[in-house]
Amino acid sequence: MIKALSVPRAGAPLQPVGITRREPGPAEITVDVAYAGVCHSDLHMARNDWGYATYPTVLGHEVTGLVSAVGTDVTAHTIGDRVAVGMLLGSCGICPSCRAGREQYCTGGGGAPADAGGFSERIVIGQDFALSLPASLDMAAAAPLMCAGITMFSALREWNAGPGVRVAVAGLGGLGHLGVKLAAAMGAQVSVLSRSRAREDDARRFGASGFHTVAGAPAGAFDLIISTVSAVTDLAPMLSLLDVDGTLVMAGAPATPLSVPVGPLITGRRRLAGTSIGSLREAREMLGFCATHGITAEVEIIEADRMGTAFARLDAADVRYRLVLDAATL
Amino acid sequence: MIKALSVPRAGAPLQPVGITRREPGPAEITVDVAYAGVCHSDLHMARNDWGYATYPTVLGHEVTGLVSAVGTDVTAHTIGDRVAVGMLLGSCGICPSCRAGREQYCTGGGGAPADAGGFSERIVIGQDFALSLPASLDMAAAAPLMCAGITMFSALREWNAGPGVRVAVAGLGGLGHLGVKLAAAMGAQVSVLSRSRAREDDARRFGASGFHTVAGAPAGAFDLIISTVSAVTDLAPMLSLLDVDGTLVMAGAPATPLSVPVGPLITGRRRLAGTSIGSLREAREMLGFCATHGITAEVEIIEADRMGTAFARLDAADVRYRLVLDAATL
Repeated sequence: MIKALSVPRAGAPLQPVGITRREPGPAEITVDVAYAGVCHSDLHMARNDWGYATYPTVLGHEVTGLVSAVGTDVTAHTIGDRVAVGMLLGSCGICPSCRAGREQYCTGGGGAPADAGGFSERIVIGQDFALSLPASLDMAAAAPLMCAGITMFSALREWNAGPGVRVAVAGLGGLGHLGVKLAAAMGAQVSVLSRSRAREDDARRFGASGFHTVAGAPAGAFDLIISTVSAVTDLAPMLSLLDVDGTLVMAGAPATPLSVPVGPLITGRRRLAGTSIGSLREAREMLGFCATHGITAEVEIIEADRMGTAFARLDAADVRYRLVLDAATL
Repeated sequence: MIKALSVPRAGAPLQPVGITRREPGPAEITVDVAYAGVCHSDLHMARNDWGYATYPTVLGHEVTGLVSAVGTDVTAHTIGDRVAVGMLLGSCGICPSCRAGREQYCTGGGGAPADAGGFSERIVIGQDFALSLPASLDMAAAAPLMCAGITMFSALREWNAGPGVRVAVAGLGGLGHLGVKLAAAMGAQVSVLSRSRAREDDARRFGASGFHTVAGAPAGAFDLIISTVSAVTDLAPMLSLLDVDGTLVMAGAPATPLSVPVGPLITGRRRLAGTSIGSLREAREMLGFCATHGITAEVEIIEADRMGTAFARLDAADVRYRLVLDAATL
């Protein structure tokens, strides 16, 4: 038996439980969890906001730890390796998305983002889905790179963030603060769109050169807006901030349909898109990029017996900027 | 005085009137109108569906005709030239869009698509905004190329329609039928999404290899859907037909906001966009492309005294596939 925090049913508080993990299969490894980030989507899954959760469930998909056992065929890792694990735990390998190296969009049934169960002492996963964690990256502060970080990195790369590109990040939370750091390191001109000015100093420290409310931001000023806010459904105000041919990318997932005026789309050939996590290749690139640029999340390490407050604090946007469970306290 | 059809006020029938046209300025030309296509947006403007029409107004923005007078500085055309005129009647020339050769998205205030006033015997426009009409293109059947045709051509080019790209055109009307012809000539694999099968034979004749209702079309089957339908506002069914990284482009303009579920956007990195008319460069390319491939609109030429029925027939989707006013009957 190992210790874990389980959600027994939708909306119920996290509960300390004892669970078992299988021995690693031939191509699998066991990872002793060091840290696991607390993502807003953990909150959604704990409440079944998206309607497809099953219970009991052990959440936690931003994981760092040490390899403690390897299967007989494992060549990618050895015992003692520092590794990082995100939401990509499988892929079919043969669908067009997998063949194109974008297995986060696997249509073969193998690639739906899933929870490794990081709110526990130990996880078992396929060797291909654990990434080597560069030595310079702190294990606690690196954990959120595996969901919040890679989500922003993948979107910034897909929409060509870089010098001369005016990027706005809407919402300065777990995803947003990493988005600012990453976009700034890519050379983009970065602004933050936020409801209040309380986080302006932080935003500038992370690399933003502009800070606006949506209502106060200049019209047509951005080539790319990445929205990390899940409470926004009327997109008219944000679309008005895009320049011609600009794109608004939804990284946050509102549960209700978006309301999108067609006028700004047509008159400025503006685009709306969504984005999920990144591919394994992108995640490796992202970890290397973060090592090169010294980027990790701003984290608050919390003990297992305080995890009950974590979801409430996330809900209240009272986190600067990511809570990370110290698995040693389970 | 010349003869014209005027909309005296929102919702009123077209009215024969006498109007005057100015002499062409130094860089302007006078075009004696031969034919003018009747576009669905004429109907919207006649009813003030979009809220910014002013009256009285002479509509008509898909124009072919002969140059009958030229200003003192005109070098692009001479009297007697066959020309085609669309919705692009001006551009500021200095904003980023204009400098990038996409003056249909001019942000300098000069480029809003406008009506040349083609439902009249004569128009006066800047020399740059009249395009030479290739000799092989019939003047009546070419008129709709200048709005319906260029709108589809520009979108197909922007989203890289060509061999290996699975394109669906939603709605087989004025825009849709030209979209099918153009996409097929570009080498794309083309399907039509339509409410009924009544136009399936036509669609196949225009170059479509597939014909579906939205409800009956295979999920994830298209890389690009161009919707020419203005009555659709719930985009969930069409988004489900896009493959990973696919794009739904709105060429039709519903008056109410679109309802867009964020799930399909995020899980498949799908995109929604709008598109307007094309640039002058694209319009020239389009006319050359149509001459090369023998593409014109399927038109029904109507006389001026039957224009009263044109809008009602457009409203009832009772047109195969474009009505074109014969200006000689004014």
